[in-house]
Amino acid sequence: MVTRSMSLLRRDPTTGRWVVFHEPRPPRGAPDPCPFCEGHEASTPPEIRAYGPPGRAPDTPGWTVRVVPNLEPLLRIEEDLQRRAEGMYDAASGTGAHEVIIESPEHKASLASLAPEQVGRVLRAWAERLRDLKLDPRVRSGFIFKNQGAAAGSQVPGHVHSQLIALPVTPKALKEMLDGALEHYRLKERCVYCDILREELEDRSRLVQTTEHFVALAPYASRTPFETWIVPREHRADFEDAAEPELDDLAALMVAVLGRLEALLPEPAYNLFLYSAPNRQARRARWTTLALDFHWHIQILPRTATPAGFEVGTGFYANVRMPEQAAAAMRLKG
Amino acid sequence: MVTRSMSLLRRDPTTGRWVVFHEPRPPRGAPDPCPFCEGHEASTPPEIRAYGPPGRAPDTPGWTVRVVPNLEPLLRIEEDLQRRAEGMYDAASGTGAHEVIIESPEHKASLASLAPEQVGRVLRAWAERLRDLKLDPRVRSGFIFKNQGAAAGSQVPGHVHSQLIALPVTPKALKEMLDGALEHYRLKERCVYCDILREELEDRSRLVQTTEHFVALAPYASRTPFETWIVPREHRADFEDAAEPELDDLAALMVAVLGRLEALLPEPAYNLFLYSAPNRQARRARWTTLALDFHWHIQILPRTATPAGFEVGTGFYANVRMPEQAAAAMRLKG
Repeated sequence: MVTRSMSLLRRDPTTGRWVVFHEPRPPRGAPDPCPFCEGHEASTPPEIRAYGPPGRAPDTPGWTVRVVPNLEPLLRIEEDLQRRAEGMYDAASGTGAHEVIIESPEHKASLASLAPEQVGRVLRAWAERLRDLKLDPRVRSGFIFKNQGAAAGSQVPGHVHSQLIALPVTPKALKEMLDGALEHYRLKERCVYCDILREELEDRSRLVQTTEHFVALAPYASRTPFETWIVPREHRADFEDAAEPELDDLAALMVAVLGRLEALLPEPAYNLFLYSAPNRQARRARWTTLALDFHWHIQILPRTATPAGFEVGTGFYANVRMPEQAAAAMRLKG
Repeated sequence: MVTRSMSLLRRDPTTGRWVVFHEPRPPRGAPDPCPFCEGHEASTPPEIRAYGPPGRAPDTPGWTVRVVPNLEPLLRIEEDLQRRAEGMYDAASGTGAHEVIIESPEHKASLASLAPEQVGRVLRAWAERLRDLKLDPRVRSGFIFKNQGAAAGSQVPGHVHSQLIALPVTPKALKEMLDGALEHYRLKERCVYCDILREELEDRSRLVQTTEHFVALAPYASRTPFETWIVPREHRADFEDAAEPELDDLAALMVAVLGRLEALLPEPAYNLFLYSAPNRQARRARWTTLALDFHWHIQILPRTATPAGFEVGTGFYANVRMPEQAAAAMRLKG
């Protein structure tokens, strides 16, 4: 059974979906004062990594970006990885990581309000943490995500932050993306994301903004109004291998795109996901084409309403706004 | 572009996910008086089917269950089915059906408050409508679902009803279930749902209630607290082929299970999905084993909180209650 100190993973045998079982978090309001603000470093678990001046002591002020363990982590790196059968079923220990990236020492509400240089530091922290965790062969996949706004499930709405989850399994949504990319590659010997970039750069009707290294676009089958993807022009499976000029370019683009999204949405709530390739150290033999067929990218999914029941149960989404209309509204005029 | 009278389906090339684009529905409160109550038949579109005494004229009182088109349907059966390429992408017309099953002439809030005989009529209406729509070779799949409570996305919270959606495509969640069942069958030459029934009937810790024809259980990898599946003991791919005694048995079980769920949840909100096999008329050649490997069943998914961002983006769920605890709370004592 689950105890306070550990969580448990179980796999649904009909779909391959993994679920983590964990202790309920005690209900509580927004903490006061904010534990993420500079000067309150003692209110979080000890930091894993921080950017700051040379000689700064850990868990003291002076940092620009700070990475700490989640106060109530879904997964823990200290757990030994155990995989076992339970009757006909499959279970695993909750081995992994659940970290919080505090994106500003100041009490800012959104990434769009930060300077591009600061967002560049955040992106470097994302890359560094993913790179570090993927050195652990127990880690199969790592996700960076942001829940912006209470409607998007944010627990600490007041202070800009993102989260990292590293898992000992490949969750279903990533597996679907990997399978879909592989199927396209087998059929055409081309990356599906590279094909999308070529199509969108020619068609132009769904483009939001293009830069030297990136294309921001409203995807053809957008699930929600103003869904936006940011895709690097250069084919690469792993975000954490992005070069410095690419990260600078991406930082400026994210500030611009999220700023326009927040201006367009009445109550800005969105989920942002960074999809990078899974850890290939652990399974090199099987995923030989992964560097050829998968293409890292960011998906931004605005939350505009309670998801209807049939979307949860069927994976079939209903959307009231064509991506061509959304992209036109998101593009800078002139 | 989408016009008032039609909707459009688009397929995401990276995952195979279908999205329907439709006109926004005008925002409005709960209609007053309730259009689903007996005596207000003129407030809905003309009925498709109703149960009532012999000689009753359509759209007049006296019915027990009444099926009408959705006032603002996502799909329409009058649309010619067109499938076409758009550049590298795939699109289809919004051909299908979107119906409302009004489950009681009285203004009742929940299926659990109806008499089992009345729920039996509802189940017969579900079966009849699915059977009828699957005669149309343009229809690939049909879903019955219920959104109970505002948190589950219900638009008309006051009057008990379910919805039917018939699609010209196989949506992703059903395709995953079909693929998962096929994979298990290829490996073991057994149905995965039959295997689950055998496992759960032996283990007993996740059983909620068993009847002559059905097993209600908390699934091993429950996504949310109190997730419940109702699975027929007899292997059959299509719900609409269920025999009369099975429907009577199922009706009584649903009243019992939903009643206990509503007693346990502080604000009862759940989504209920009926998963029946897709239309095999249209693709007999390809799905030869489907009658052997797929097993119709009902999934009830309580909505207990706003889904966290990472659940949407990864398909990896976090749950604070073990299904063994949930089943113990749901089981009748003694």
